Amino acid sequence: MQMHRLLFALLTLLALSANAQLLVTKQAFSMDNFETFAGKTIKQVTVGWESYGELNADKSNVILVTHYFTGNSHAAGKYRADDKASGYWDALIGPGKAIDTNRFFVISVDSLANLGVHDPYVITTGPASINPDTGKPYGLDFPVVTIRDFVNVQKAVLESLGIQQLFAVVGPSMGSMQAIEWAVAYPEWVQRMVSVIGSSQSDAWTTAYLEHWATPIKLDANWQQGNYYDSSAPLDGLAASLMLITQNALTPAFFNQVGSGEMNYSAQESSPLADIRQSHSIVDWLRSRAKQRATSMDANHLLYLVRACQLFIAGHGDNIEHALNKIKAKTLFVTASSDLLLMPYHAKDTHAQLEKLNKNSQLVVVDGDLGHLEGVVGIERHAQSIRTFLQDQ
Amino acid sequence: MQMHRLLFALLTLLALSANAQLLVTKQAFSMDNFETFAGKTIKQVTVGWESYGELNADKSNVILVTHYFTGNSHAAGKYRADDKASGYWDALIGPGKAIDTNRFFVISVDSLANLGVHDPYVITTGPASINPDTGKPYGLDFPVVTIRDFVNVQKAVLESLGIQQLFAVVGPSMGSMQAIEWAVAYPEWVQRMVSVIGSSQSDAWTTAYLEHWATPIKLDANWQQGNYYDSSAPLDGLAASLMLITQNALTPAFFNQVGSGEMNYSAQESSPLADIRQSHSIVDWLRSRAKQRATSMDANHLLYLVRACQLFIAGHGDNIEHALNKIKAKTLFVTASSDLLLMPYHAKDTHAQLEKLNKNSQLVVVDGDLGHLEGVVGIERHAQSIRTFLQDQ
Repeated sequence: MQMHRLLFALLTLLALSANAQLLVTKQAFSMDNFETFAGKTIKQVTVGWESYGELNADKSNVILVTHYFTGNSHAAGKYRADDKASGYWDALIGPGKAIDTNRFFVISVDSLANLGVHDPYVITTGPASINPDTGKPYGLDFPVVTIRDFVNVQKAVLESLGIQQLFAVVGPSMGSMQAIEWAVAYPEWVQRMVSVIGSSQSDAWTTAYLEHWATPIKLDANWQQGNYYDSSAPLDGLAASLMLITQNALTPAFFNQVGSGEMNYSAQESSPLADIRQSHSIVDWLRSRAKQRATSMDANHLLYLVRACQLFIAGHGDNIEHALNKIKAKTLFVTASSDLLLMPYHAKDTHAQLEKLNKNSQLVVVDGDLGHLEGVVGIERHAQSIRTFLQDQ
Repeated sequence: MQMHRLLFALLTLLALSANAQLLVTKQAFSMDNFETFAGKTIKQVTVGWESYGELNADKSNVILVTHYFTGNSHAAGKYRADDKASGYWDALIGPGKAIDTNRFFVISVDSLANLGVHDPYVITTGPASINPDTGKPYGLDFPVVTIRDFVNVQKAVLESLGIQQLFAVVGPSMGSMQAIEWAVAYPEWVQRMVSVIGSSQSDAWTTAYLEHWATPIKLDANWQQGNYYDSSAPLDGLAASLMLITQNALTPAFFNQVGSGEMNYSAQESSPLADIRQSHSIVDWLRSRAKQRATSMDANHLLYLVRACQLFIAGHGDNIEHALNKIKAKTLFVTASSDLLLMPYHAKDTHAQLEKLNKNSQLVVVDGDLGHLEGVVGIERHAQSIRTFLQDQ
């Protein structure tokens, strides 16, 4: 009897734990034709999406989560109980969490030209996709796509589910660009907008900076102006780009902590002193992680994501104030003081502009050593401000 | 007679004016053999040097200026009266200036593997030099060189002039590494040390970051493992590296000011929206400047300078405290609050360590929108702290 009780307790615990784990399924959404913001048509667009929690009867409990540059729609949960990792914002999204799936229907959509196109759980349409007109991969013939286009694809997914309003749209980094664009382009839809580690526009600094992420790919001899689908992919260039992206998203404090660990980093390591062809341990660490990640990604897709971010200004016009003035949503900006990629001035400036326009806006500056990634890996420590914002009426 | 007086007056004026302009001559120094810190021998080392002001009788008025990564020994003055630009620290060095050439004999030496090897005024020995053993350029057979090696070459130049002590050693950025290394390696020589926008070691963050400067060169198909001296140089890779270096040395405020000028930057520019192969104006601006600068530089030399910086820890051992404890010089650290490349923590940490060791150290944090370049282009605004430091006994 005691044995049975123990077994029952264990099974209950496992069940709760499985529930806490949010087992999720990737779904697919297709459109025969999609017209881009720049006026080009893309045939047979298919993207992946996933959701957590239940849609209520009047479809008023929807929170759209928009993903970051190297991310996809796997925002929370696991596909299988034995997955090593959960979705990137699992600390934020789930039963009883800040974005409470007992209350909200949370949905996320893979972007066009998603970076992780070779990840079996990513479904996207981009330069690596087959062009129906030629039967070959698009390469650079794929049209330039924008943050507005990502938003419009999401809108089509939502409409296919009969959804016409968003309790909130929430996203980090490139996802924040989409969240802000939602609030500007479709103000009647969006009741609340949360921008995490984000920006309402790519200023001259950011547009120039993003180019450094594209450059290594274009220098790789395998890139061949984007026509590499019948030959070797430019994986060295892609890995070099990912090395820079990773470092830009982190901080000296983080790297120096890595260096002071098992690696036992020293500027005076013997092998790079003896041979110009060798690298320091910290460089090898960064490179090996990037090479591993590159295998599930496509180099051209990275170029298109860079361009989408470079082209971003809320409303996609030439006047940011005019665009922000269209917002009806209550807004929250969460920025990280240690962020070196989208530094706090982005969120502060936009928040200040919204206040000047008499909009309902809040700004939270969070601390921590993770830099930009305070908004992704470090989100658990900053969830309270988002929880409170979503509870307010 | 009056004519003679007039002529004499004019000649005097010209001489004074030439003095004010500091007309300078690049000189050369050679050694048959130079042994590197790592124990390799380089034959026939030749470097350029220049000086401003007069060496006094007991050779006690010497200030050595050590240059930054993309710089050379042209710290002040002009080679010809009609040169467009003066040396990089001309606002700091000259008659009556903070480093007063009426009082001091100021000398600077081109580094080994100097980046500007194709600049007619740079004299250096590096991977682009002819290896006397083979009659061909070294390429990657050139030994790895270190900050200590730059210091040792400077010491040989000074000794060839009968100099045995330095009133001060002063340098920005990579020059600061050399200045600190002088104070640690040859404490009996160095009475005063000024580190501007500098660091006493390449921490894990900095070593990893510097690798992004090397990567584009290695990706350029023309690089060919450094054996490009009989073919096309990897100028695209070199330009890409210089684009990143330039941006790392500046700030959002600076770039956004450039963008808001004649360029009239907009995230929503039509040509990059229409065609993935086109770039934004701010990217074109950055690229065109980098391509222009690349023509006087050598890509392999950049790799060697990156490595010299990556390997730097004051004293070139494994214990920074032990190294700093050797310093006898009075020290001044000038760091820029907006510096994104060698952030203020570098100077602050070293200054704090020196204070803990009961050394005579001062720290000045300067403001401004130029980031790292506050210590080069912006030096005039921060000259007073250096002037005062050199006047103190």
